[in-house]
Amino acid sequence: MKYMVGKTSHGDAVFAVQGENAIDLTALDANVGTDLMALINDPALVESVVAKMDGAPSVPVASITPALPVAQPGTIICLGLNYTDHIKEGGYDIPDYPALFMRGRNSIMAAGSPMVRPNCSDKLDYEAELMLIIGKGGRHISEADALSHVFGYTVFNDGSVRDYQRKTHQWTPGKNFDQTGAIGPFVVTPDDLPEGASGLKIESRVGDEILQSSNTGNMIWSAAQTIATISEYATLEPGDHIALGTPPGVGHAKKPNPRWLIPGEVVDIEIEGIGICSNPIVDEADFVRGVAAE
Amino acid sequence: MKYMVGKTSHGDAVFAVQGENAIDLTALDANVGTDLMALINDPALVESVVAKMDGAPSVPVASITPALPVAQPGTIICLGLNYTDHIKEGGYDIPDYPALFMRGRNSIMAAGSPMVRPNCSDKLDYEAELMLIIGKGGRHISEADALSHVFGYTVFNDGSVRDYQRKTHQWTPGKNFDQTGAIGPFVVTPDDLPEGASGLKIESRVGDEILQSSNTGNMIWSAAQTIATISEYATLEPGDHIALGTPPGVGHAKKPNPRWLIPGEVVDIEIEGIGICSNPIVDEADFVRGVAAE
Repeated sequence: MKYMVGKTSHGDAVFAVQGENAIDLTALDANVGTDLMALINDPALVESVVAKMDGAPSVPVASITPALPVAQPGTIICLGLNYTDHIKEGGYDIPDYPALFMRGRNSIMAAGSPMVRPNCSDKLDYEAELMLIIGKGGRHISEADALSHVFGYTVFNDGSVRDYQRKTHQWTPGKNFDQTGAIGPFVVTPDDLPEGASGLKIESRVGDEILQSSNTGNMIWSAAQTIATISEYATLEPGDHIALGTPPGVGHAKKPNPRWLIPGEVVDIEIEGIGICSNPIVDEADFVRGVAAE
Repeated sequence: MKYMVGKTSHGDAVFAVQGENAIDLTALDANVGTDLMALINDPALVESVVAKMDGAPSVPVASITPALPVAQPGTIICLGLNYTDHIKEGGYDIPDYPALFMRGRNSIMAAGSPMVRPNCSDKLDYEAELMLIIGKGGRHISEADALSHVFGYTVFNDGSVRDYQRKTHQWTPGKNFDQTGAIGPFVVTPDDLPEGASGLKIESRVGDEILQSSNTGNMIWSAAQTIATISEYATLEPGDHIALGTPPGVGHAKKPNPRWLIPGEVVDIEIEGIGICSNPIVDEADFVRGVAAE
């Protein structure tokens, strides 16, 4: 199943995407709500609404303005260094444990919404990433069981303000600027993807310019290993988001000059079998939350 | 005003503490709810409930089992290195920007609840910290305006699992073990403390053993500077928590041997004018969430 959360002229809804069209699941059953949390928390609801999809009317995917798959994710954990060649381009050693950091809610936004370049820096960078959304929570999840805890996979642009990321050894500020981390628009369930969403082409582009191009099979820590590692220290909750790191080709490491994002550009992050997360770059001075996204 | 959130035989409530006794504000006005969020979001509610306090019955503070001041804080941001002598004992250089990291919800618990030493490590350490709770949210808050955005100050024990904190350069795992960060039990509003809660004695102890003893006036970044710094990159929301770093004397730096916390011990963190946050150390094997805290 490929889900999409978003708004049409009929209001906010959860959709089941079938090719170029999408069925409004919220219209089929109001219990579905307006983000994925109800479906994540209630597998029986998934079954019952799927049973109603046959013959239901659909709308063009293009007519839906994407919203966040989970409106208020409890925890957003990101894996920093997960592709060997990206680690080298950043000047880091290859670690034997994943470098993990967290993002706050105001740092994320839906596909389609502006990615905001802040007033204080012109060093806004893209990072194409596979992201997973936890279905069933838990602690001390074994690597063998881990993939059964995944509700689905989506696309993430881990937008980073590089000079603030490296103000100190802790990356938090550069990874938490308002409206810099783009999520979505599609969430694909594990049964529609290879195991662990491995082996998928992952790319970032501005127009025809290919900025990153790799494969999720090149990740050092798999989805399953990452879930096991995090759940050794923390209980994962339904709806938590885990981003799985970016391949080489980020802007700050481009030679001979860094390749920063510029207002007016549109960044596309594409993962094979999931879709494209596309966000325009907007200067903070020109951005009004909730308005520019319309 | 000194608030406390907790449970008595009458249920969950918000209390106004007056010496050894406390008035149940939730009983005076159900709109107060069972944590501080309603009061944080509605200054008029504070005024109206305060007007009802005169002559209201009270219960002993000792009869209240503390709960988290904010049941589900949206964002918990911690300042890592904020006292010069603690930075030196950790082997870090004194930075010109605060080292910031984040904690997830499952890592925190109320005063009185067990601080859990995980199965995978015996390197559980205490950190006495001043913590502030945001009242009015905002972005680009100036240092001059910052203190008007504080709802109140509380006590924080930033429990840290040191070997996991230093697995990589990112401290996230060691700062996010379930049930390691203790908050409360009292939240004191700014009008009852010195400006920015500066100049207050701060101490950690196990029984008679004084582990850390310093003064919040020794912080490099004040509450106001920290709010201004964070809000340069992120919109702060009502109820967000900011922890302001720990003074020297943490266990991992004790000579000749580290001083790790041991199950059966009780750690007290005290800040002058706010109160004592006291938590027993419990082995993960002996801890059942929601039971051991009773």
